[in-house]
Amino acid sequence: MGGTATGPRHAQLDDLTQPAGWVEAYMARFLEQRPLPRNLREAVRYALLGAGKRLRPILVIRSCEAVGGSAEDALAPAAAMEMIHCFSLVHDDLPAMDDDDLRRGRPTLHRHTSEAMAILAGDVMMGLAFELVSSRLHPPELAQRVCSELAAATNDMIAGQVYDTLPEHEGSLEPLEQLQRIHKHKTGALIRCSCRMGAMCAGADQRQLEALTRYGEAVGLMFQVVDDLLDVTQTTENLGKAANKDADKGKLTYPGLLGVEASRSEVLRLQAQAHQALRDLGDRADPLRQLCDFMAVRER
Amino acid sequence: MGGTATGPRHAQLDDLTQPAGWVEAYMARFLEQRPLPRNLREAVRYALLGAGKRLRPILVIRSCEAVGGSAEDALAPAAAMEMIHCFSLVHDDLPAMDDDDLRRGRPTLHRHTSEAMAILAGDVMMGLAFELVSSRLHPPELAQRVCSELAAATNDMIAGQVYDTLPEHEGSLEPLEQLQRIHKHKTGALIRCSCRMGAMCAGADQRQLEALTRYGEAVGLMFQVVDDLLDVTQTTENLGKAANKDADKGKLTYPGLLGVEASRSEVLRLQAQAHQALRDLGDRADPLRQLCDFMAVRER
Repeated sequence: MGGTATGPRHAQLDDLTQPAGWVEAYMARFLEQRPLPRNLREAVRYALLGAGKRLRPILVIRSCEAVGGSAEDALAPAAAMEMIHCFSLVHDDLPAMDDDDLRRGRPTLHRHTSEAMAILAGDVMMGLAFELVSSRLHPPELAQRVCSELAAATNDMIAGQVYDTLPEHEGSLEPLEQLQRIHKHKTGALIRCSCRMGAMCAGADQRQLEALTRYGEAVGLMFQVVDDLLDVTQTTENLGKAANKDADKGKLTYPGLLGVEASRSEVLRLQAQAHQALRDLGDRADPLRQLCDFMAVRER
Repeated sequence: MGGTATGPRHAQLDDLTQPAGWVEAYMARFLEQRPLPRNLREAVRYALLGAGKRLRPILVIRSCEAVGGSAEDALAPAAAMEMIHCFSLVHDDLPAMDDDDLRRGRPTLHRHTSEAMAILAGDVMMGLAFELVSSRLHPPELAQRVCSELAAATNDMIAGQVYDTLPEHEGSLEPLEQLQRIHKHKTGALIRCSCRMGAMCAGADQRQLEALTRYGEAVGLMFQVVDDLLDVTQTTENLGKAANKDADKGKLTYPGLLGVEASRSEVLRLQAQAHQALRDLGDRADPLRQLCDFMAVRER
């Protein structure tokens, strides 16, 4: 969500997404300090640094700020969340999975190095995420809570990959219910968790935590509907990854099930729902409101 | 280390390894309760239950007991440790890694299901391990400490896989130093961590924690020297996995570097070192002493 475009709208976006740079620097420092084989560290750096929208860590930090915390309080879980997200991309791209050659406009990690290295680098990125949140958060109550939240969301995300890529025949679920279950797990779990971890790091009360949870659920689903729409309406060049791959594989998608127009209406409904969730949070939640609005109209 | 053999020696081994059954039951219950796609749960059950020596969880529990804790205190980290170990086996067996067809006398998970499922099941086993230790240990100080310990050891183990299977040309290390670095990371980290997590769950003091750390380091290295010896002296049928595969691949091994006899002396030296580490711990550490002695002479 960074970029070099100009104009007032993009200046505002640059402000909003400023935490991306802080998280990038934090991850780079952590990787320097953590003893690892040189080639493994390079593989992790390749997969983790220098590209990516950083949506999830931005949500962690903006959610923390929305209930009175500082960005610094949330850097460790923000970095951990991005590491989990990137690990899932690396494994998702593997030949036995989606078999993708391109990610964020560059060769995927297994193309850049080897399949074995991509498997192990993905593994260690997950492990490093838990090393970060368990060793760098205080007090211990917060560390335990954030670890537990992150672990559950990670496992739900993996479950979503299975629902999506290795579906079983289940007569009981309608296609739209199946699709919602996939999205709730595959994308929704980490986005929801991002907002909740941010809230926790600020010491949010129960009401604030619930507001950010509902916000996270709405933007999480919205993100995926927009993603489905981009897959059918944008080019590979603009996306930095293969376009039309969902439709080509006969996967369930929102435009496929509801049509493009109804999917666009769904985006607007979820956008309104996200705003509604934040209604009691005051001005400090403005960055989250703006992020939601940008996510609704993003083009890559 | 279980089995149905009779005689006093095996009766004693059955006593020692009793925690294997408790951990098996604990993992099975956890997997029943945790919502997961049916096929993913089945894959995890296949990789996790019904086979395996359970050395690491037994070490967690016997270490906890050695400093005054109860087995129950250590069940969650014991189960988590076995899940980490089994995740690493599943990924290690993948075609892009060791490409093994056989594990614990049965088809490897990717042969039993698919490569994609084996990747995702391995991933979720790691995630479930952190879900377990972060959500089931109290007080939060203990949960944080155990999570942090487990995460660091997991990452060191993965680093060991890289040192072992994707080595870089490094002129500075002698072959024996390279081999020690591989073993310290690949097998040593998890075995050391097993002993330390057990000690932590019993509220061990610093002196006790250090004693169990040194014990874990000695038996961890001993385990691997024995493993190297078994690889050259035993049959595939007896091991339940491919024999001679290290030698066939030209990997660094103890017998390869030192010869069989010197490797056997090294086992005795490490066995003595493990006993020495426990010298101040009294009778409660007897199961750890006996485990070490069994590990020194195991035949599979």
